Amino acid sequence: MERIKPRTLSGFMELLPPAQQQFEQMLEQLRQTYANYGFTPLDTPVIESAEILLAKGGGETEKQIYRFTKGDSDLALRFDLTVPLAKYVALHYSELTFPFRRYQIGKVYRGERAQRGRFREFYQCDIDVIGDGKLDISNEAEIPAIIYQLFSSLGLERFCIRVNNRKLLNGFYTILGLETRAGEIMRTVDKLDKIGPEKVQQLLEEAGIPAESAQEILHFTSITGDSAEVFTALERYQGRSDIFDEGLSELRLVAELLPAYGVPQANFAIDLSIARGLDYYTGTVYETILLDHPGIGSICSGGRYDDLAGYYTDKKLPGVGISIGLTRLFYVLGEQGYLNESLNTAPADALILPMTADLSPAIAFATQLRQRGIRTQVYREDKKFKAKMSYADKLKIPYVVFLGEDEIANGQVKVKDMTTGEQQTLAPETAAAQIAQGVAERAKGRPIQEKG
Amino acid sequence: MERIKPRTLSGFMELLPPAQQQFEQMLEQLRQTYANYGFTPLDTPVIESAEILLAKGGGETEKQIYRFTKGDSDLALRFDLTVPLAKYVALHYSELTFPFRRYQIGKVYRGERAQRGRFREFYQCDIDVIGDGKLDISNEAEIPAIIYQLFSSLGLERFCIRVNNRKLLNGFYTILGLETRAGEIMRTVDKLDKIGPEKVQQLLEEAGIPAESAQEILHFTSITGDSAEVFTALERYQGRSDIFDEGLSELRLVAELLPAYGVPQANFAIDLSIARGLDYYTGTVYETILLDHPGIGSICSGGRYDDLAGYYTDKKLPGVGISIGLTRLFYVLGEQGYLNESLNTAPADALILPMTADLSPAIAFATQLRQRGIRTQVYREDKKFKAKMSYADKLKIPYVVFLGEDEIANGQVKVKDMTTGEQQTLAPETAAAQIAQGVAERAKGRPIQEKG
Repeated sequence: MERIKPRTLSGFMELLPPAQQQFEQMLEQLRQTYANYGFTPLDTPVIESAEILLAKGGGETEKQIYRFTKGDSDLALRFDLTVPLAKYVALHYSELTFPFRRYQIGKVYRGERAQRGRFREFYQCDIDVIGDGKLDISNEAEIPAIIYQLFSSLGLERFCIRVNNRKLLNGFYTILGLETRAGEIMRTVDKLDKIGPEKVQQLLEEAGIPAESAQEILHFTSITGDSAEVFTALERYQGRSDIFDEGLSELRLVAELLPAYGVPQANFAIDLSIARGLDYYTGTVYETILLDHPGIGSICSGGRYDDLAGYYTDKKLPGVGISIGLTRLFYVLGEQGYLNESLNTAPADALILPMTADLSPAIAFATQLRQRGIRTQVYREDKKFKAKMSYADKLKIPYVVFLGEDEIANGQVKVKDMTTGEQQTLAPETAAAQIAQGVAERAKGRPIQEKG
Repeated sequence: MERIKPRTLSGFMELLPPAQQQFEQMLEQLRQTYANYGFTPLDTPVIESAEILLAKGGGETEKQIYRFTKGDSDLALRFDLTVPLAKYVALHYSELTFPFRRYQIGKVYRGERAQRGRFREFYQCDIDVIGDGKLDISNEAEIPAIIYQLFSSLGLERFCIRVNNRKLLNGFYTILGLETRAGEIMRTVDKLDKIGPEKVQQLLEEAGIPAESAQEILHFTSITGDSAEVFTALERYQGRSDIFDEGLSELRLVAELLPAYGVPQANFAIDLSIARGLDYYTGTVYETILLDHPGIGSICSGGRYDDLAGYYTDKKLPGVGISIGLTRLFYVLGEQGYLNESLNTAPADALILPMTADLSPAIAFATQLRQRGIRTQVYREDKKFKAKMSYADKLKIPYVVFLGEDEIANGQVKVKDMTTGEQQTLAPETAAAQIAQGVAERAKGRPIQEKG
């Protein structure tokens, strides 16, 4: 037979089993946290009509999108979970209850230039709260609490949720008489982390912004400190633009609620340089950075928008949401050695080795273990003892159970703890309890473990 | 703004939130059962090189596959999870430990003619055990046990796992002198359930099978009864073909192990009419039918194969596996009214209504509930009391918690059980414990509930 060389496309993550187990542990933690905050899971098709996905258009999207025809249909693969959400809410509007809180975890597709750590197929993990007509500001204050809970439960500690407000920014540019150019300026300022203040100043001046205003912009975006200090600095601009004052009061509200939400000051900062490039954010905006790896950029971003689905409906649907690019985050954490290697990545917690022709006692004990939630394999291949142990060893299965004639005759099982090497002959119920305890112990860690 | 009418492509399932919750409950149960039997989760790209996916070729596949180019690449969407598994095992062979037990749950794509209950995007939920060179027969015996456990844990009772063996069939056709036509004959016999014996006999004769042999074939495939009866009937053919005898002994082994595996006789039958259309099965084959709805066809099928990845590697990789088409199964269960409506499909278990401007007590109690795993929302929209209650009502959130000035002053919370209408003012810890108990009670059912 002529053979085809097996390969996986470049830019597509395909993990080996232990890494996949780590990835699943993160997915499960994300699902749990989102559900815990009362978000309902949603699933939408990966393929949509190209007309729907490209309603907004825009250069990068059109270039990167996977678009094709099947029969007469002009189709495309979703490039994010926001456009499908907009379609979903517009389409099912009358069947939904608002505020509509949903989470969605799914693959999205972007035909980017292949590049280390960049993926063409990747998981996005999104939450959004969508209001019907209006949406209370406290929703914007809850988001940092969720981000905090999310990353804490994954095991991260050294991260910072940076918050800003688009109204505050728009108001500031109004004060400078630059309101018509606010979007363009913010896109330039957004590059601060990457290219530094001198280069930003230069770009602004090249775009025709007066040097004095450019300096004022850089001064404004460099205001730092704890919340109290930032608010003191901002008071200087108060009373000169309604939109500025509104943004300031929203930002105050968000910052004031955070202690109640349990977000420590160390994990939170007001950062006036954040604008988020997207046009549709209108209120609070969020970014999250790893304190020890700011160069990676934001690992969780989002914000408040006023009009989710204007391309599909005349209903006004304001919302607030965040998105995590999990595939890239997972890749980066792996690169940094941040994935907790002490968590069990084996396919099973226990491996039973029957030493007799009759498999019944082995199967019965496997059933007993599985009923306790212990993931169990019965190994029945015709191999030498050493090969069987090597199977358990290679897969890092923590417990091996031997069932020979003696054990069966005595109504016992022999259990080997593969970590300590200790072997015990026990009553089945005692063995099951002991294994269950060991498995629970091994499951205690978090998926992420920062390096000192 | 010019608006685009929102729509979802036909043949693509998109569920409303309560139905999505039911779907997720099934997914979660599948994941748990697969993991419990020591299968490791796997995830492979939805997009693969067309050359890889179409290595085997074949008319239906080429017609139905979603294939397109991006840049210079000839790409396609996977149409099952078996071909990606074959590629994965061939590609990562040296990094895997065998037998390799994996489960994969993911979307696959087939551009079929749109038809009620047929989907172009659907979830397949597969398990496979892959051996390196050889694989013990007991793996084939374990599969019905997993199927049984799987559907039992979902709540199904009236289903039957039908088992046959391809060697037995091939041997039988050898005895008739029709071994070169076995594949073709089996594809015709496979239609028995759909078109009946007369039509099958007619098709066989039209294909040039002697009338006598056609009758013998129909007689053979109609052998029924419990396992002992079937084996007695089969003994008549014994000793006339080595391959038949081998198949018979394998089938015996599988049937004999089932009681040890805890599969009741009522959920299991040897059915000699089952061949599974696919060419690559070589040993035990499986189908699973709903006893009250045999017309739906098999809801879980698979079998033993000798050569998983011959298109990609010269390594001999025998295996055994099954596949569930979950999207269609879910649709059918819904149509039959089999989805358990008593399980909670709300986005949250508890809704907290703060009645004061200070949200801190509400947030603190929400945190307390979430720490117990109670999915909790804090409702903060500026609405009338009636609208707030209606929100909880419409979403079927089982508990509403009121936090007014009196409750806060007394260090208490007021809890309303939305099912009974009962209202109690309790200490927070007591309320949390009571809600946790009620939530656990509501989670006790299974996703599927058969109708009498």
